[in-house]
Amino acid sequence: MQLENASTEQLEQWETELAEQYQGFLGQNLKLDLTRGKPSAQQLDLSDALDGMLGGNYQSKDGTDTRNYGGLEGIAEARDLGAAILGVSANEVLAGGNSSLTLMHQAVTFAYLYGPCAAGSAWKDENDIKFLCPVPGYDRHFTICEDLDIEMIPVTMTDQGPNMDQVESLIKSDSSIKGIWCVPKYSNPTGVIYSNNTVNRMAKLGKIAAKNFRIFWDNAYAVHDLVDTPKPLANIMDACRNEGTEDSVLQFASTSKITHAGSGIAFLAASENNLNAFKKRLGTATIGPDKVNQLRHMRLIPDGDALRVHMEKHAELLKPRFASVLNHLDQHFANSNLGQWQRPEGGYFVSFNTLPGLAQEVVKLAGDLGVKLTPAGATFPYGKDPDDQNIRLAPSFPSVEEVDATMQAFVVCVKLASVRQKLQQLNG
Amino acid sequence: MQLENASTEQLEQWETELAEQYQGFLGQNLKLDLTRGKPSAQQLDLSDALDGMLGGNYQSKDGTDTRNYGGLEGIAEARDLGAAILGVSANEVLAGGNSSLTLMHQAVTFAYLYGPCAAGSAWKDENDIKFLCPVPGYDRHFTICEDLDIEMIPVTMTDQGPNMDQVESLIKSDSSIKGIWCVPKYSNPTGVIYSNNTVNRMAKLGKIAAKNFRIFWDNAYAVHDLVDTPKPLANIMDACRNEGTEDSVLQFASTSKITHAGSGIAFLAASENNLNAFKKRLGTATIGPDKVNQLRHMRLIPDGDALRVHMEKHAELLKPRFASVLNHLDQHFANSNLGQWQRPEGGYFVSFNTLPGLAQEVVKLAGDLGVKLTPAGATFPYGKDPDDQNIRLAPSFPSVEEVDATMQAFVVCVKLASVRQKLQQLNG
Repeated sequence: MQLENASTEQLEQWETELAEQYQGFLGQNLKLDLTRGKPSAQQLDLSDALDGMLGGNYQSKDGTDTRNYGGLEGIAEARDLGAAILGVSANEVLAGGNSSLTLMHQAVTFAYLYGPCAAGSAWKDENDIKFLCPVPGYDRHFTICEDLDIEMIPVTMTDQGPNMDQVESLIKSDSSIKGIWCVPKYSNPTGVIYSNNTVNRMAKLGKIAAKNFRIFWDNAYAVHDLVDTPKPLANIMDACRNEGTEDSVLQFASTSKITHAGSGIAFLAASENNLNAFKKRLGTATIGPDKVNQLRHMRLIPDGDALRVHMEKHAELLKPRFASVLNHLDQHFANSNLGQWQRPEGGYFVSFNTLPGLAQEVVKLAGDLGVKLTPAGATFPYGKDPDDQNIRLAPSFPSVEEVDATMQAFVVCVKLASVRQKLQQLNG
Repeated sequence: MQLENASTEQLEQWETELAEQYQGFLGQNLKLDLTRGKPSAQQLDLSDALDGMLGGNYQSKDGTDTRNYGGLEGIAEARDLGAAILGVSANEVLAGGNSSLTLMHQAVTFAYLYGPCAAGSAWKDENDIKFLCPVPGYDRHFTICEDLDIEMIPVTMTDQGPNMDQVESLIKSDSSIKGIWCVPKYSNPTGVIYSNNTVNRMAKLGKIAAKNFRIFWDNAYAVHDLVDTPKPLANIMDACRNEGTEDSVLQFASTSKITHAGSGIAFLAASENNLNAFKKRLGTATIGPDKVNQLRHMRLIPDGDALRVHMEKHAELLKPRFASVLNHLDQHFANSNLGQWQRPEGGYFVSFNTLPGLAQEVVKLAGDLGVKLTPAGATFPYGKDPDDQNIRLAPSFPSVEEVDATMQAFVVCVKLASVRQKLQQLNG
């Protein structure tokens, strides 16, 4: 379907046909949901051996009784796993509770109240602090900033990562910029892997930014590949060490999309300075993480080889769901300007751009059919997509059949909204 | 040993004898620790069935797949347990992660940044905010305030709870008082149970305090009795309902000293207003608690009867340890003014007061023997016991034999410090 040179008659005919198809879906009482990046029940099944894994042996390798209080940094085995995932050494890792979002929230809150590292560096003591937010991005990152009245400045995402010219220029000219949100591998939602050049330029930001600026490196999909030979992500901590900017980055990861989503282990990796500052405040908030659950995880996934085998099983379940999304998009929009999308090689999302001004309308049309999509705008700070065109598709949770049914409805909604927009434009 | 009327000769003779006994301990290379309220390994063993409890069934009673994301309030079963422990209804309870300290830290931090409830009530927007701290109290409560520069005002503990005349008078005269820390049952460290009158007067504070004042009701030892017919604690939420002050109290509890100390469930109970305000901010910090662990707990301890049976087993293990502490104190100090203590009927501590000015010295003397005691002053805000006399004894973790060995050394340290002080006073 090509709208550009279509006659009004052609457009009206399409509108009639599409409206009929839409009515057909309406009669089906669909109840479909493509909103959140949740693993499916089949994926969760892969880790059901977790419960009962300990066989009465609650002792970690260094002899710690994991059942009791203490151990703010997590057990040694879990720190090893975090180190492997994030490409750092175990002493740079803190293994926490079930949520990397909580670690990010704490890192931002502690930096706000007390400073990310050195005394006297609290963000709250400065006026009008700001974060850079590559867009489209992850809504939960943005909410953390919004709660603390941190102004968010959108930065364009390219297929190499954030536009680093923009990033550098903004940071150079404004010392009130205190952070940048990054999902460097299979970025949420675009699926982009930051290029080596992007990572290297990120590592240099510590030289031009305010001393209490931090890169929030949320490597949520570090081992979540959908292809056999995944493109590697350059090691940000190694790059920072080359530049002498180790204190400029805080890395996050978790097992949430490796084992059971709500019951995993979260990791923070950081320089000694940053980690000490974080632990000082964390020690006020808790006596320690759930070490028993950490040990249970390490018995299930004792090393990197076990992790690779485990993640391949996830990929087998995810691949047909992603294939369904991409097949529908290819089939209906490959030779049109009605949509743009990327082909992620990992992660949990497909990012789809409608024609400008149509994302909200498409989400509404789908919603009226009983097809829940992530709210339009959710991938932008303050929920405002300036071009109203980005829609995040999250196919992991539903069955392949449900993804297929959802996408059938989705493409009709996109086409219908697009044709109607064109007709309106023609009719002035 | 009575120091008051003792002659210098008598005191010098005692000093010689006690110094000899002290030297004897020094030769034993003791390595004993009576510092923290941790359950013993035997207590932890009581809950070892937790791992494997689910038998592959991860579904909560309302059909939730506990393995996946979501459920900010915790699963229904866990909220029921929290409601039973705290004497409220389940819809007033949030069941969280492994640490009630984390819930308290979040409650204070959210109140500081955003206000405990209504918009515009953030503590940070007022100058010089203060908390009332009944003393002796729990050091980790005090650290939360200290981190946020909240001024702490000590309030005297009586055997009925905090001195309510002091509390009411301070609150009436100073609207910058935003909170009070309470451990209402088997108070840490005194073991006091707040009287009905104290609870009723607490419930009335909401009428005279600032609107954004909150009682932090840390009911950590709600079901941790050491006697067969424990004295009941009046229900603070019922009392508040009578007064129309439901929003003035936030209650906390956990299973940390019920199951595995580091791997339990924490509870917050609060009015609808307070709970909604808390959840609004919590939802930025996490997608939800570890529901699998909550379910595991509820399968082990499905109801109040199971809880009672379970807690009786804890009591059987704790009783001889507390008996050892009290026997040594009775035997050596019952007929002297060298020490004062209470006989807790539950909880985790015995609070011991030396003669004024000796707590630090006793802790140091013991430390030099290899006997670790909670640092003197730890039970006071800023670590400063104005009379330098309170020492918190925590006998739960060591074996009965170790408690016995520790107390043998402890009484000698107390006597030696007391005799030396008296000699110094005489020698002026």
